[in-house]
Amino acid sequence: MIVHPGKGKVVALCGGVGGAKLAFGLSKLLGSRLILIVNTGDDFEHLGLSISPDIDTVLYTLSGLANRELGWGRQDETWNFMAALEAIGGETWFRLGDRDLALHVERTRRLREGDTLTRIVGDFAKRFEIPATVLPMSNHPIRTMVATADGMLPFQRYFVQQRCAPPVNGIVFKGSRAAVASKQVLSALESPDLRAIVICPSNPFLSIDPILAVPGVREHIERSSAPVVAVSPIIGGKAVKGPTDKIMAELGVPATSDAIVRHYGGLLDGLIIDTYDERDRADLSGQVRVAQTLMKTDDDRGKLASAVLDFADQLTAMAIARNSKQ
Amino acid sequence: MIVHPGKGKVVALCGGVGGAKLAFGLSKLLGSRLILIVNTGDDFEHLGLSISPDIDTVLYTLSGLANRELGWGRQDETWNFMAALEAIGGETWFRLGDRDLALHVERTRRLREGDTLTRIVGDFAKRFEIPATVLPMSNHPIRTMVATADGMLPFQRYFVQQRCAPPVNGIVFKGSRAAVASKQVLSALESPDLRAIVICPSNPFLSIDPILAVPGVREHIERSSAPVVAVSPIIGGKAVKGPTDKIMAELGVPATSDAIVRHYGGLLDGLIIDTYDERDRADLSGQVRVAQTLMKTDDDRGKLASAVLDFADQLTAMAIARNSKQ
Repeated sequence: MIVHPGKGKVVALCGGVGGAKLAFGLSKLLGSRLILIVNTGDDFEHLGLSISPDIDTVLYTLSGLANRELGWGRQDETWNFMAALEAIGGETWFRLGDRDLALHVERTRRLREGDTLTRIVGDFAKRFEIPATVLPMSNHPIRTMVATADGMLPFQRYFVQQRCAPPVNGIVFKGSRAAVASKQVLSALESPDLRAIVICPSNPFLSIDPILAVPGVREHIERSSAPVVAVSPIIGGKAVKGPTDKIMAELGVPATSDAIVRHYGGLLDGLIIDTYDERDRADLSGQVRVAQTLMKTDDDRGKLASAVLDFADQLTAMAIARNSKQ
Repeated sequence: MIVHPGKGKVVALCGGVGGAKLAFGLSKLLGSRLILIVNTGDDFEHLGLSISPDIDTVLYTLSGLANRELGWGRQDETWNFMAALEAIGGETWFRLGDRDLALHVERTRRLREGDTLTRIVGDFAKRFEIPATVLPMSNHPIRTMVATADGMLPFQRYFVQQRCAPPVNGIVFKGSRAAVASKQVLSALESPDLRAIVICPSNPFLSIDPILAVPGVREHIERSSAPVVAVSPIIGGKAVKGPTDKIMAELGVPATSDAIVRHYGGLLDGLIIDTYDERDRADLSGQVRVAQTLMKTDDDRGKLASAVLDFADQLTAMAIARNSKQ
């Protein structure tokens, strides 16, 4: 029995590249029924500009403007601003493409004029003809800080400038306690017709935890009657991209899907692991499905999105069956 | 008798394109002995960025980076930022090239951090290997406002967005009374070895008047023992570029070199007019020289600069001769 087949809204929590690929697949299937809650813990002020890397990656990926060769930024990008900045002695460790810069300049201008990040991102998404709703996790600045042997590093200093080299002792989401989830985020999680809450295969520590740290978000997910399905970002003990496995090792957590489930601490109703890890399935408690989680093509993205939705619908059906037996 | 042949400092007041061409010629002859005081009345805040059009035109012209085809901006420029900005609904009436943008972003960042425009421009000039000293007329914001039948327009709205169409009733330099000339500007005008003060063939109303409106600048020029030489921006009753003649007509001033001299009100020791206007020479009071003021090539720029310096040196020699007779 499938509940709401092809109906109802789906909320997906995601960070940058890996998460955005699944978001792309989901958006192809769901269109305007998809609401993305995107990490802004990586946001920072650089060159006087307000930069939202995960938000922009999601916008570029969903609109088909993402640079697939680089794995970040925009396609057909040029770098003349950066070259001219270097010539006058400006900071160049964080690469901003000429086209990409338009979003940073316009976002900064509007934020300074008192606009909210939610409205700004909504307008960008509309301009990019993205049918899904793209929501920053909060309008309040929350800044992921990485505790290392060299001291506390703002996320982009750790991630880009230091290339994740310093061993991580801990992670802090500065400003999260004082932050408030936007009403759009909370009302998305309260949608009466919510089909599923999806946790994309983003870094749990750096991309999903900041979202869950926004007051009210975790509670709203726990309270929701919709099934919560995560896709594990770990394949064969490694992260597909980024420092997830390295950070897990440094934090003394084994780089396994089981550790991911435990990390989310009872939040999940189901986990999708990669076919490569099928043999580990027996070790995992709770509901687990196996699918190809490596997304190289648009077809891969669509298939994984479809598997996620099918799994969520099955979990709903199981819950209804359980309830009717009681 | 030539005083200080090839020695002493030269101060030149200039605006954008036309003035910058003579500044280029002067810099080739004088190198580090040239100090430019540049109009910042055209500066404005746009897209949240601090833009200094005349300063940047001078920097690009003196470093050989200027776009000679366009007549403004940088050579080898690309416009991908602008195209991307247009796609997200940003303002595009003022065109910012990808390379050009580097100066605006870096200037804005440093100004926000409390740096002075003088230091910022000095660093840019050093990076561009410009031997001359390039000084903004003031570190205080002074904004040229154009009074038109449609009301008061900020300069760039009048000049770029409205293409100088609205008839001009008057011009106001907002903030000039409260402004202070930088100590570098005043000490340049007080140099004991000052060979000449040159007023470049910029728009007297829009480019030179704002400089003269900075408290202390006009007085320092009047008090200086160095000869003050202007190059008329009018050739055959027309401005080579820009709205000078149109504005003169709208303000009820004939578009003649004589009107330019009267406009500067006794500030000038000598005026250079174009060979085309040689027949008008008899009508002009005071010291006048004829030279080719139209600068199409680098050679034209150098020759006019040379004529300006020769004329200034002759004026000095005449003054010395007069004094020795008394």
